Amino acid sequence: MHLDDRDPFDLVLPPAVDIREVGMRDGLQLEAPLPLADKLAMLEALVATGVRRIEATSFVSPRAVPALADADQVAAELGRWSGVAFSALVANPRGAVRAVDAGVPDLEYVVSASDGHSRANAGRGTAEAVAAIGEIAGLASGAGGTLEVIIATAWDCPFDGRTPIARTVDVARAAVTAGADRLCLGDTIGTTTPMRVVRLLDAVRRVCPGVPVGVHFHDTRGTGQANALTAIQAGVTQLDSSVGGLGGCPFAPGASGNIATEELVYLLEESGVHTGIDLDAVLAAARVTERAVGRELPSSLYRAGGRSVPRGTEQAVAAS
Amino acid sequence: MHLDDRDPFDLVLPPAVDIREVGMRDGLQLEAPLPLADKLAMLEALVATGVRRIEATSFVSPRAVPALADADQVAAELGRWSGVAFSALVANPRGAVRAVDAGVPDLEYVVSASDGHSRANAGRGTAEAVAAIGEIAGLASGAGGTLEVIIATAWDCPFDGRTPIARTVDVARAAVTAGADRLCLGDTIGTTTPMRVVRLLDAVRRVCPGVPVGVHFHDTRGTGQANALTAIQAGVTQLDSSVGGLGGCPFAPGASGNIATEELVYLLEESGVHTGIDLDAVLAAARVTERAVGRELPSSLYRAGGRSVPRGTEQAVAAS
Repeated sequence: MHLDDRDPFDLVLPPAVDIREVGMRDGLQLEAPLPLADKLAMLEALVATGVRRIEATSFVSPRAVPALADADQVAAELGRWSGVAFSALVANPRGAVRAVDAGVPDLEYVVSASDGHSRANAGRGTAEAVAAIGEIAGLASGAGGTLEVIIATAWDCPFDGRTPIARTVDVARAAVTAGADRLCLGDTIGTTTPMRVVRLLDAVRRVCPGVPVGVHFHDTRGTGQANALTAIQAGVTQLDSSVGGLGGCPFAPGASGNIATEELVYLLEESGVHTGIDLDAVLAAARVTERAVGRELPSSLYRAGGRSVPRGTEQAVAAS
Repeated sequence: MHLDDRDPFDLVLPPAVDIREVGMRDGLQLEAPLPLADKLAMLEALVATGVRRIEATSFVSPRAVPALADADQVAAELGRWSGVAFSALVANPRGAVRAVDAGVPDLEYVVSASDGHSRANAGRGTAEAVAAIGEIAGLASGAGGTLEVIIATAWDCPFDGRTPIARTVDVARAAVTAGADRLCLGDTIGTTTPMRVVRLLDAVRRVCPGVPVGVHFHDTRGTGQANALTAIQAGVTQLDSSVGGLGGCPFAPGASGNIATEELVYLLEESGVHTGIDLDAVLAAARVTERAVGRELPSSLYRAGGRSVPRGTEQAVAAS
């Protein structure tokens, strides 16, 4: 408790968190397809940041996601980097087989908690998507990998509106029962806010004690970093972010994408939370990414030129 | 304390906060001068949001800030709106006299905690700026108004680097001793982060018990809303924000400005914190503002089209 200004407020944060870079997948999936060389240059720059987990691609229909149609070629190149755990997203058991065959047994499988998004995104309802978790978990573990179930539209759906907490909790419980090693709650359209973050995390953990629960926030409405900080205060240590904030929402043209890796790293490192990620290296990776996608990235920190306190002009403006 | 996932985390927020709209002053001060009619249209739209405090203009050198050279004309029109407390920023006693004479006795006076910014912004060092507080406080109270001292560069300075906490605390103490009714801590260049917010608030309150302390954040590096939420958790209930996030930093061209009113209202109202401000009305005011300044506003929420969960397309993307 706080709110009494006679006592200092204690902002309790963990000594370290574990960030997963999702720019190669969530960031690129809506872009025009990039040449493999550009993707490898991005990966090279991202590995150089010190990040320990990178979602490298997704094994999904090349017709639905042409930007990631080269998943096999990307996967074939991952052996050149050590010290980083690469994973891939899949949308069904067929994708899981492809990923495992390509040498990427650490999988993320997306299940939308809302039927509307599930049908639009994956061509089937939530129950049907949940039913495939066991098979995918078996494919991952059989290949020495792990399975994380990412619950999309965990808070809100662009088709069905607010997702009842009970729906998201049901998916979480079913995922763990079916063999998921970890969960991740996705704010797919960037609408959630801090109090709702806390409430859903609490509800999910009650039914899945001991299961690691990560968060995947979009910054579409300017709430992403506040949501991330709140989740971390609530004990979350696994967060997704994307270099430069790359990754729009297909349902909100022009909107910002994932929370920007450099903004999350800046916020946390300056608050004493170790990320293992070098901020200047992320900004360098953002430059590589910006050149590759050919358009301005949404990250405010990147556009402001980084961490450093800028040298000013002598313009007098009575600024505060 | 928290960080133990066996116990639910309790996000403690106050039932209400008091937002001051600074778009008319901090938002416009770097823009090309607007016609008075455009400013009155902005004010009309801002009053309609339900906000209870509006910083209407500043009485500073028209040479230094040509965009606000019409402060007297703006002040002369404020009587048409009731139920809103209008205030004005001043940079010295001369400005305070002008403001009081114009019928705006509720003043904000900016003192930079760092000498470098103080000299660039106001043509004199911090000590000299502090020495004027008593005279300005007397002018305000003599006219039935109040004085808030906004401590600019409270955390960082574009010229001097990090501002030692002791410097900011010294200004705070001197301001209250000299008659300031309230304080406001300004993150002038948008570099601070949550843990530093908590530490400075704690230090300032120790030396100024019982004095209301507000916060003024810029979103230049994507940390503004997280800083605001942290300050609120720490007991702050007075926050500055700007419609559409208008208001760049003169030392970081292209960077975002003040935290956006609509983003703060969205984050707080959805978290159960009453602001008295109607989100849709702020978005309407942002449209008025965007037309007036003739360029895209930085607010992510505004660009995403508001609060509502958008209706999607049928595009299948395996999005999370």
